[in-house]
Amino acid sequence: MNTAPGRWDGLLLGARLATLDDDAGGYGLVDDGALGWRDGRIVFAGPAAALPGAAADLADEVTDAGGDLVTPGLVDCHTHAVFAGDRAAEFEQRLSGVSYEEIARAGGGILSTVRATRAADAGTLLAESLPRARALVADGVTTLEVKSGYGLDFDNERKMLCTARRLGDALGIPVRTTFLGAHALPPEFMGDADGYIDAVRAWLPRLHAEGLVDAVDAFCERIGFSAAQTRRVFDAARALGLPVKLHADQLSDGDGAALVAEFGGLSADHVEHTSDAGVRAMAAAGTVAVLLPGAFHVLRETTLPPIDAFRAHGVPMAVATDCNPGTSPLLSLRQAMQLACTHFRLTPVEALRGATLHAARALGLDDRGRLRPGLRADFVRWRVREPAALCYWLGGDLAVSVHSAGRRVAGATPTA
Amino acid sequence: MNTAPGRWDGLLLGARLATLDDDAGGYGLVDDGALGWRDGRIVFAGPAAALPGAAADLADEVTDAGGDLVTPGLVDCHTHAVFAGDRAAEFEQRLSGVSYEEIARAGGGILSTVRATRAADAGTLLAESLPRARALVADGVTTLEVKSGYGLDFDNERKMLCTARRLGDALGIPVRTTFLGAHALPPEFMGDADGYIDAVRAWLPRLHAEGLVDAVDAFCERIGFSAAQTRRVFDAARALGLPVKLHADQLSDGDGAALVAEFGGLSADHVEHTSDAGVRAMAAAGTVAVLLPGAFHVLRETTLPPIDAFRAHGVPMAVATDCNPGTSPLLSLRQAMQLACTHFRLTPVEALRGATLHAARALGLDDRGRLRPGLRADFVRWRVREPAALCYWLGGDLAVSVHSAGRRVAGATPTA
Ligand SMILES: [Zn+2]
Ligand SMILES: [Zn+2]
Repeated sequence: MNTAPGRWDGLLLGARLATLDDDAGGYGLVDDGALGWRDGRIVFAGPAAALPGAAADLADEVTDAGGDLVTPGLVDCHTHAVFAGDRAAEFEQRLSGVSYEEIARAGGGILSTVRATRAADAGTLLAESLPRARALVADGVTTLEVKSGYGLDFDNERKMLCTARRLGDALGIPVRTTFLGAHALPPEFMGDADGYIDAVRAWLPRLHAEGLVDAVDAFCERIGFSAAQTRRVFDAARALGLPVKLHADQLSDGDGAALVAEFGGLSADHVEHTSDAGVRAMAAAGTVAVLLPGAFHVLRETTLPPIDAFRAHGVPMAVATDCNPGTSPLLSLRQAMQLACTHFRLTPVEALRGATLHAARALGLDDRGRLRPGLRADFVRWRVREPAALCYWLGGDLAVSVHSAGRRVAGATPTA
Repeated sequence: MNTAPGRWDGLLLGARLATLDDDAGGYGLVDDGALGWRDGRIVFAGPAAALPGAAADLADEVTDAGGDLVTPGLVDCHTHAVFAGDRAAEFEQRLSGVSYEEIARAGGGILSTVRATRAADAGTLLAESLPRARALVADGVTTLEVKSGYGLDFDNERKMLCTARRLGDALGIPVRTTFLGAHALPPEFMGDADGYIDAVRAWLPRLHAEGLVDAVDAFCERIGFSAAQTRRVFDAARALGLPVKLHADQLSDGDGAALVAEFGGLSADHVEHTSDAGVRAMAAAGTVAVLLPGAFHVLRETTLPPIDAFRAHGVPMAVATDCNPGTSPLLSLRQAMQLACTHFRLTPVEALRGATLHAARALGLDDRGRLRPGLRADFVRWRVREPAALCYWLGGDLAVSVHSAGRRVAGATPTA
């Protein structure tokens, strides 16, 4: 609870707030709550009874939420939402028994998306990506991370990162860009992965100089890049002061979690096969575990991430869509929360905290992910009362309105 | 392909039709296809080149689909979408290890929904159910089955069935009602299941006389009703000439599939534990297997329905949401198709046929589920080109427009 001088831009009354502002890991529920904001920041989040005056005196616009649940805006901290082309045929192939690794080795998989993404001009790439990002926002996302990694040459990686920024402009939300040049080996470097890593290291400062890179990522895996190659990418990031994150230990334990922790990384993502030593390294470094249950679901994986070890060692767990055309065609972070509960046995409160404050931390952001005065006024009004209901329904249109820095960016009913 | 005299009401050009009008089990794809309708019925479905004249001469309203996929309207043939109350708390309980059967035995589960549904007046019940049905329609459903079974006394079963009919009126689609009095034992009959079945048998003719019953169903399971009790319900249905279907063999093999087949039933639903003898009985009787992967997913079941046996014996497989507050909180039939592919390894074409023509058959309807002249003009225009994409994306808003008997009932872009 806090107040600020001057009139507020907006005030929501009659809300059931899940502030998540609870260091014990709870929902931080406030019944009959009020949320006030000004200049894009929260100025009040607490019981309506504690408001410092009459609503009409406090704010220019007052809305009654009618008992609806209000949560922080969701943060999707791991997506590949910018791409061109279609992988539905591959989905049909997989259902006839072809494995993801077989498809990748046959030049399909990622490389088919690379071909389509390279072939698309910037306008086409934006037009194809926008409906996906819009769907994510419509279901509550107010901060979106987007990775490059389907360009795999300077111009096309740059095109992807520019498109990611333009998505944010088009939708009125912050987009955080991650340079994932080391996603796959492009055909022109076949047989020369080390040479490709040299190229990636050379592109990074140029992209960073244009303000296109918020973090650096790599795909450390048998079918991706080795630990030594990943380390060289991370060295280049460190030289620029850029934070790192890693696709780690998804299909096998490659000590990826320990590697990214060694670099003080923001997050280790996937982590299904991370060892206990990896978990300890993450805990010591403050590295977030980003759980991606969409890929687990679609690939029908059976090895669960070490959830109990993360809990025991206090490693924050984030949840993200991994929105991508090959292994995780998710257009809703809420669906990722559902899958995290069902497949990984996260509790609904863990899933919601994972899609808000822990996800923000996985992006190095501490100004969002809770409802607390001083933070960004990113919030969602939902047509449910129980926060667990967000993890429970599959499908449907639950968001009444979605707000970024106070401004409504999605939802049928204007409330501010 | 067919034509009819007089001008058509609407004509869609530039469509990629998945007619499903293919007895070999395919998509029945038509590129550069056209779909014409008049008086709520399809009058043309085929290549635009085969149209019997110029578009402007044929129809009052001509729309260019721009290459979008057009499929028959989806048929959700198994839902419990009319109910009141919330079971999110139970969802949180299950995630802390309480089983569905334990919850049911403790008086939670179904009975908590019964209490809430009984307590709700008709207007409240409609208001709570309408957003769920609207979500299903928005994602492509043009025929919706709704079961009673949370009232468990005459007035409340009647209230549920009336509400189901009103949903159809409100949304402009046909709703098929199924009387499921034998869903659970109400508290006032505790210890007297046979007496409750007597009551159910007595209510049925009265409800039928009001035109509220299109089919009769029961929950035949250890925690539901016995085969002998189910048989008595079916006898009452048969006496009225009403078709039957059954919640069969979901948690254990109770010979439910064979029982409903013996009565020439429309469908056996769930069928995870159905034996080979049950499959053969279904094949002989022409009974459809209704697969409900949402409950399988949420309950984390591991026993798959005998898909290969259904294929081998030519038992048609339908896919439905089972939309209900306890075990299958699905608000999208497309998500059920995704889950059927992922969990049950249905191919996308099986899933799409399962959610259209086989689902129609599970409701005893032969006038919908394909794009063919003479059938209802129920169709969906999707913002994808590949039919497999419908089973591939989780979440998102893929329906451009949804049409029931030619009239647009959902979708942001008017096309007719
Ligand atoms: Zn990824
Ligand atoms: Zn059911």
